[in-house]
Amino acid sequence: MSRSDELYAELVTLLQGAELLGSCVSVLSWDEQTYLPTGGAEHRANQLGLLSGLAHDRRTAPRLGELLAALKDSGSLGDPDSDAAANVREARRNYDRATKLPKRLVEELSRTTSLAQQAWVKCKKNADFPAFLPWLEKVIALKREEAAAIGSASGVAYDALLDDYEPAMTSKEVASVFGPLRDALVPLVAAIQQSPKQPQTEIVERHYPKTAQRVFAEAAARRIGFDFDRGRLDESPHPFCSGNGPGDCRLTTRFHDHHFNSAFFGVLHEAGHGIYEQGLRTDAYGLGIGQACSLGIHESQSRMWENFVGRSQAFWQFFYPQAQQAFPVALGKTSLDEFHFAINDVRPSFIRVEADEVTYNLHIMLRFEMEQRLLSGDLQPADVPTAWNETFQKFFGLTPDNDAHGCLQDIHWSGGLVGYFPTYALGNMYAAQFFEQARDDLGDLDAMFARGEFRPLKDWLNEKIHVHGKRYSAARLVQVVTGKPLSHEPLMRHLKGKFAALYGV
Amino acid sequence: MSRSDELYAELVTLLQGAELLGSCVSVLSWDEQTYLPTGGAEHRANQLGLLSGLAHDRRTAPRLGELLAALKDSGSLGDPDSDAAANVREARRNYDRATKLPKRLVEELSRTTSLAQQAWVKCKKNADFPAFLPWLEKVIALKREEAAAIGSASGVAYDALLDDYEPAMTSKEVASVFGPLRDALVPLVAAIQQSPKQPQTEIVERHYPKTAQRVFAEAAARRIGFDFDRGRLDESPHPFCSGNGPGDCRLTTRFHDHHFNSAFFGVLHEAGHGIYEQGLRTDAYGLGIGQACSLGIHESQSRMWENFVGRSQAFWQFFYPQAQQAFPVALGKTSLDEFHFAINDVRPSFIRVEADEVTYNLHIMLRFEMEQRLLSGDLQPADVPTAWNETFQKFFGLTPDNDAHGCLQDIHWSGGLVGYFPTYALGNMYAAQFFEQARDDLGDLDAMFARGEFRPLKDWLNEKIHVHGKRYSAARLVQVVTGKPLSHEPLMRHLKGKFAALYGV
Repeated sequence: MSRSDELYAELVTLLQGAELLGSCVSVLSWDEQTYLPTGGAEHRANQLGLLSGLAHDRRTAPRLGELLAALKDSGSLGDPDSDAAANVREARRNYDRATKLPKRLVEELSRTTSLAQQAWVKCKKNADFPAFLPWLEKVIALKREEAAAIGSASGVAYDALLDDYEPAMTSKEVASVFGPLRDALVPLVAAIQQSPKQPQTEIVERHYPKTAQRVFAEAAARRIGFDFDRGRLDESPHPFCSGNGPGDCRLTTRFHDHHFNSAFFGVLHEAGHGIYEQGLRTDAYGLGIGQACSLGIHESQSRMWENFVGRSQAFWQFFYPQAQQAFPVALGKTSLDEFHFAINDVRPSFIRVEADEVTYNLHIMLRFEMEQRLLSGDLQPADVPTAWNETFQKFFGLTPDNDAHGCLQDIHWSGGLVGYFPTYALGNMYAAQFFEQARDDLGDLDAMFARGEFRPLKDWLNEKIHVHGKRYSAARLVQVVTGKPLSHEPLMRHLKGKFAALYGV
Repeated sequence: MSRSDELYAELVTLLQGAELLGSCVSVLSWDEQTYLPTGGAEHRANQLGLLSGLAHDRRTAPRLGELLAALKDSGSLGDPDSDAAANVREARRNYDRATKLPKRLVEELSRTTSLAQQAWVKCKKNADFPAFLPWLEKVIALKREEAAAIGSASGVAYDALLDDYEPAMTSKEVASVFGPLRDALVPLVAAIQQSPKQPQTEIVERHYPKTAQRVFAEAAARRIGFDFDRGRLDESPHPFCSGNGPGDCRLTTRFHDHHFNSAFFGVLHEAGHGIYEQGLRTDAYGLGIGQACSLGIHESQSRMWENFVGRSQAFWQFFYPQAQQAFPVALGKTSLDEFHFAINDVRPSFIRVEADEVTYNLHIMLRFEMEQRLLSGDLQPADVPTAWNETFQKFFGLTPDNDAHGCLQDIHWSGGLVGYFPTYALGNMYAAQFFEQARDDLGDLDAMFARGEFRPLKDWLNEKIHVHGKRYSAARLVQVVTGKPLSHEPLMRHLKGKFAALYGV
């Protein structure tokens, strides 16, 4: 073994140990949101605090720093895209980020966001922005401090935060794709609104018994390729996907007896995340190569299965007869076309998480604008409601009736997640661009979907995206997979094509 | 703060930190047995290995030893029964036990028992004792080594192991109550067998739909006092109760559509354990005063609710109408008396976990005899089947048809749990003695049960037993609560009284 091989082997051991401990945190967090008795909340917070602290200690262990420095000195690990070089690069990135933050700031952020989230629940319930303002001010001040501590090549504070979720992406790059996307979306939304052809939205609001929903959604998730021997589906108030380590990936959803979309498309969405997690290389557990590329790429996988596949006509050609069997009362006399139009209803609304495929991106752009201005100091927290409502009017032609339906609707800021929102819309764009490429590579995907064949697409995603982990940045991955830089055009082609047909616009 | 107060405060912090980490292991173990996807088994083993090791490090931290030594030197912590004195005593006991075992032995025991349990599953399935013999030999050799490392005041190797489960109890003391109990049980079993009056056992083997069983069992557990805001009920192949820390106590059971007893009495049993866990002092979390006294005392709580309460006529005076509503097909035309007799069927059988209230204790005595002889070297592992079958014939008048129904039936020895079995029968005796005292203190318990009032008994157990934790040894707790030393007589009075009436003997 050469000297650098030895150093690298030790690094791998340390990284995998840290990840193993972190995966215990995942299990306890999953349990907190699914099965924990209410009375156990305080003890669970203590357990999570302890384990998170121990995991943080491992991620910032001085020995890690020594190994990374020694590896730098020991010369090349070969091709910069090789597994080892990528793993070391990611380890260095994480170590630098973790050690740049003073412990005091980490602890203050943790404590403040924990309290701010509790305050947010109440303030949202009462649509009481003034009560939330002091918390927003504290969180923004701490996040500005965090951005300053981390720094960014661009010199833009916001980029230091964005980089945590979408490594190597800058706000300038985001703006360069968001701008033309918005310019194209606004007239599309207007045209759809003015169309005389509209779906019967009550179709998805009929009675869908919960047990049948569960069986049907689980069968669909299995069919598209989520492996239930290495994962499961449970219920939680807020749907999520938790990758707890090799062979243990858990999806959650929520069921409403009188709404079909929420649980079903929620499950497809989370299963998309899960298929990504299950496609990661287990032999690279805890290393960059075995980890998801970025939040945006993760979201591209969930959005692809939820919208590009799950809301397509072809998907329902296969699944609709089963849906009619599962929900004979609700769907027995409804045609496939009527159902397919209803699940693709587009209409401007206040709430992001309930938004359709078209307007969703506008919700994100609004938040991206607010966040950047808050970080730069151009917008004061106290002025957020006014700024929000003005921008909302500009984008949607509507003004929220209260702040609970406006700037208080999302948990993210109270949780310290500033710079996270753009990854949702980036995910939609990545998804569109990957999906076009998959069509080019695989041929008639619709014909496959109509036969219930999803394996070719899943295998393609496994091979083109999942096995690479963090080998490339998101931007480079897009380039490598599709041969082109990220663009808003594939998404607009998808949306225009689909909704022109549905709405006759 | 005095010097010893300072030392004590630091000790408390260390102990609570170790317990907090240990409680994370509990959650992951519970999850392993309830919801873990099959594909996640290997990763879970890695997680548990890591956390168990970290918890062990904390329990054997040199600083703990220094604090315990300094506290010894710093003089009295007051009354030896005081909280602080009891906590220090227990901390010292645990530290001594943990540090007496060489790390090599701990690791070898862990590895060997893990493999031995896997081997046991197969060997039991094939009733193949010769294949299991090498594992039994290894485990017994290691347990003898463990006993030697720990030592015992009596000089008896077995006592060093027993002490882990039933602190301060010796095999001589166990034998002194088991002997007369056996002498009284054997003729009772014979009389019952010869009685012409026998229950209709098919009553409990009718069709009991699983969902209704679950609802009914959960309602009963809630009614007797298990707090579902601080706990829950799930399913697992082997029922258990897991106290994961304050506010988070979890019961499991298994449901069989054609057997009423298994799930229902399993839930009452585990709820009895759970009520004990929920009755422990949360302000003494991680300290002796906040921990269960012994396995035998723990078992006394589960047995009391399962058998003394749950299999009583009075209990069913309250619950039987609800049972008839829950299971109208199975029980609609069956009288309370017929049902009550059926759930109290007594008959010698090969399998401990299926045994009734009377014969159960004989199963334990047999194992106690085998274990002692294995530890002393008087019995060789190779001779276990012969010795088992001879003793079984002596106690039950039956000979197991194969080793799966004999010496291979229990998981304990393969798991290294030698010295554990006696606590089951001790639990029955403790339960009987406590229950007699509760009757003396509270009056007509049957009248309360018949009205669905279980709170007085639960409160009595909370006050007399649960809040004391490990303040007293099990033997002293019995003396303190009942004013008498442990005796087999209360259990025999209970069994004779109950089964004389049922069987007319």
